[in-house]
Amino acid sequence: MSKDRKIKLGLSMRYLGYHVAAWRHRDVPADGAVHFDYFLKSAIKAEAAKLDMIFFADGLGIRASDEPAGSLCRDMRNVELEPLTLLAALGVCTKHIGLVATASTTYNEPFHVARKFASIDHISGGRAGWNVVTSWSEQEAWNFSRDTHLGYAERFERADEFVDVVKGLWNSWEDDAFIRDKESGVFYEPSKLHTLNHKGKHFSVRGPLNAARTPQGRPIIVQAGGSEAGRELAAKDADVVYSNAFELAPAKAFYDDVKARLAKHGRTADQLLIMPGVTLYVGKTREEAQAKFDELQALIDPLSGLAMLHAYLGDLSAYDVDGPVPEVVLSGNQVRSIAENLLNLARKDKLSIRQLYQTVAAGNGCRVLIGTPADVVDDLQHWFESGAADGFNMCPATLPQGIDDLAELVIPEMRRRGLFRTEYEGVTLRENLGLKSLAFGA
Amino acid sequence: MSKDRKIKLGLSMRYLGYHVAAWRHRDVPADGAVHFDYFLKSAIKAEAAKLDMIFFADGLGIRASDEPAGSLCRDMRNVELEPLTLLAALGVCTKHIGLVATASTTYNEPFHVARKFASIDHISGGRAGWNVVTSWSEQEAWNFSRDTHLGYAERFERADEFVDVVKGLWNSWEDDAFIRDKESGVFYEPSKLHTLNHKGKHFSVRGPLNAARTPQGRPIIVQAGGSEAGRELAAKDADVVYSNAFELAPAKAFYDDVKARLAKHGRTADQLLIMPGVTLYVGKTREEAQAKFDELQALIDPLSGLAMLHAYLGDLSAYDVDGPVPEVVLSGNQVRSIAENLLNLARKDKLSIRQLYQTVAAGNGCRVLIGTPADVVDDLQHWFESGAADGFNMCPATLPQGIDDLAELVIPEMRRRGLFRTEYEGVTLRENLGLKSLAFGA
Repeated sequence: MSKDRKIKLGLSMRYLGYHVAAWRHRDVPADGAVHFDYFLKSAIKAEAAKLDMIFFADGLGIRASDEPAGSLCRDMRNVELEPLTLLAALGVCTKHIGLVATASTTYNEPFHVARKFASIDHISGGRAGWNVVTSWSEQEAWNFSRDTHLGYAERFERADEFVDVVKGLWNSWEDDAFIRDKESGVFYEPSKLHTLNHKGKHFSVRGPLNAARTPQGRPIIVQAGGSEAGRELAAKDADVVYSNAFELAPAKAFYDDVKARLAKHGRTADQLLIMPGVTLYVGKTREEAQAKFDELQALIDPLSGLAMLHAYLGDLSAYDVDGPVPEVVLSGNQVRSIAENLLNLARKDKLSIRQLYQTVAAGNGCRVLIGTPADVVDDLQHWFESGAADGFNMCPATLPQGIDDLAELVIPEMRRRGLFRTEYEGVTLRENLGLKSLAFGA
Repeated sequence: MSKDRKIKLGLSMRYLGYHVAAWRHRDVPADGAVHFDYFLKSAIKAEAAKLDMIFFADGLGIRASDEPAGSLCRDMRNVELEPLTLLAALGVCTKHIGLVATASTTYNEPFHVARKFASIDHISGGRAGWNVVTSWSEQEAWNFSRDTHLGYAERFERADEFVDVVKGLWNSWEDDAFIRDKESGVFYEPSKLHTLNHKGKHFSVRGPLNAARTPQGRPIIVQAGGSEAGRELAAKDADVVYSNAFELAPAKAFYDDVKARLAKHGRTADQLLIMPGVTLYVGKTREEAQAKFDELQALIDPLSGLAMLHAYLGDLSAYDVDGPVPEVVLSGNQVRSIAENLLNLARKDKLSIRQLYQTVAAGNGCRVLIGTPADVVDDLQHWFESGAADGFNMCPATLPQGIDDLAELVIPEMRRRGLFRTEYEGVTLRENLGLKSLAFGA
């Protein structure tokens, strides 16, 4: 590990933050998710703090159901700005920060995805990144003329071919293809145009792409799946992996596993950055941090809390929310291993229903750290130096508080320890991430 | 016709202008089409001149073939920025001007189109417009896993249903659906959510859209086809029609025909604006205007000129470009009526091959006007007051010269005659176009 290796930091900006009750926080503008200025302010703060990138997760529809009845209208996850248009607009209002958004390989065509991300890379001067996802909900299938979502194997097979096509399209034109010689009348050199002519199982795409090679060579590719197929896709194609890990040992095992897979694709460990998601509750004192956390947890509407448990444990709305978690008979429809873990946790710690959904809500899928700047940086530094992470995808509970806490409390502590940049090193996202420049066709 | 009725003006901004030799003009930056700043500068000028809207035509690939051989690399129509990302970026750098882009109903999913244009409408504060096209080239089909382009009837049937779905999705949420009451925990009023549940021949789309009703109620809908099915689609769904007309009488007939079709859809004549395309060559004197025109015509590379004629008359590269147009035997592959018109014109005016392709190139499908500001405004005013146009879609031969000539020469003359605004009347594109506000669900 290089001595001057720095932590890479992203800021995940979807909705009003990752906590289910974010919108009810007194300092959060509840209508922020439909206003460009809300995201712009946080993006500008993130750039001032020299973060590597901002990131927008996405879904192609409203994924939640109204179970238990009456819960859906209490959920903030419904209307929002579309991430690619939002990213393009943020790209012209910022100068340095990376701009990453999600696009699904299951409900898109590779030509559109290649073209739009290439365009954002051009518009932003080389700061675009595509987070490759395969989607997961039936609700999205229903918006795209399908009855059911594709199965796991087919989804990843399609994703693998999809990414190949997109990368191929991004290599349609060599960097110096465009002569544009007004005198001779020759606009491009024909030998530097490469028509893809892809014919595969899922796609036939002739190309070429009607976009020039981009300032980064191609946009950064991000991947977020931890499954076997997800790890393979990451090792073959990704520059960055957003992972989910709650304990150091499995995080390190994941890190080592994915990095070890790179060699068979002719890649080296420094060509892929692994950035686990983290949700921070930080205060100048531990008491202040805990108070921030407790305040937000107390804002969870019981119906929203029960909706979070519904997918695992079914409808618990007939029980006292402050009574014990009942012994539920699990059916095949539930995500069984998670459900069993939840029941075991409830039994062990004698949790009430409220305490159980608060536990689930705290990080909403991310690892949670509560403490002073020194506390949380101790933890992040330990993961970073133990070889469990190259950086972190920060998933703030609420925005703009999450970026304020990062900029004012956490990053100064990281800088004091020499763990985080004081200036951007390069012009493009690829350069700032410390990734090698790409030869044409690579 | 209202006495204070004003001419509506759009600026079509694709590539470096509509003339095939635009890129070779000494004052045109030949690499502009891949640089955001190139479009930004013209958009800012168009807004300073108080134009109604800027517009980006689009194709999903490179449509031209390399016939005659060696012509394709002389064509500027290859790499460009993608219009929806470009539009979103321009939206945050402007405040008043409308932002219209093309999206194909043949190679898109309605959910994506509804969502992206809604997002641009939100980001821009109510200035987005969607130009509905069905695409036409085989080259585009090949980029979307199809061997051939859809036939005319199927294309328009799909387009009709596509627009219905998009409009339905835009009406997912009533304006006041979002209560966001932090106290009670209710984010939206369930009775104000309308799930589409569309099941049709081409699409099944459940909805709702994950975007709030937009500042304009919905984005403006533009349509550009002059065929029977195109006119019907316009009368049923469009707010604006971009038409192509070269003579006043057929222009007026088209205008009357499309406006007459509105009634059966419960619409009135003032709910649809018809804006023919025009390419202007304007100078302070007629000599100056003619010189601008002649200079550009002389820059047409003969191979590019022959490529323009190829689709109609086949390969003429074996003939002397300054010799007479040969008597070509037309085959079924050629667009026969256009080909016959070209041959008749060449015979009547004894045109050389060069003169024939210059004639085709002059407006590249648009009506051409050459003259002083008074000359061209005389003509435009006559069309406007004769009931052949509500305004014009300006298709400049080159940019930025085209917008400079509009702003400095043409618009001052229009204002002197009281034909064009001096200030924007409203906030949204819909308001500035003078269209009625839309009730929810309309």
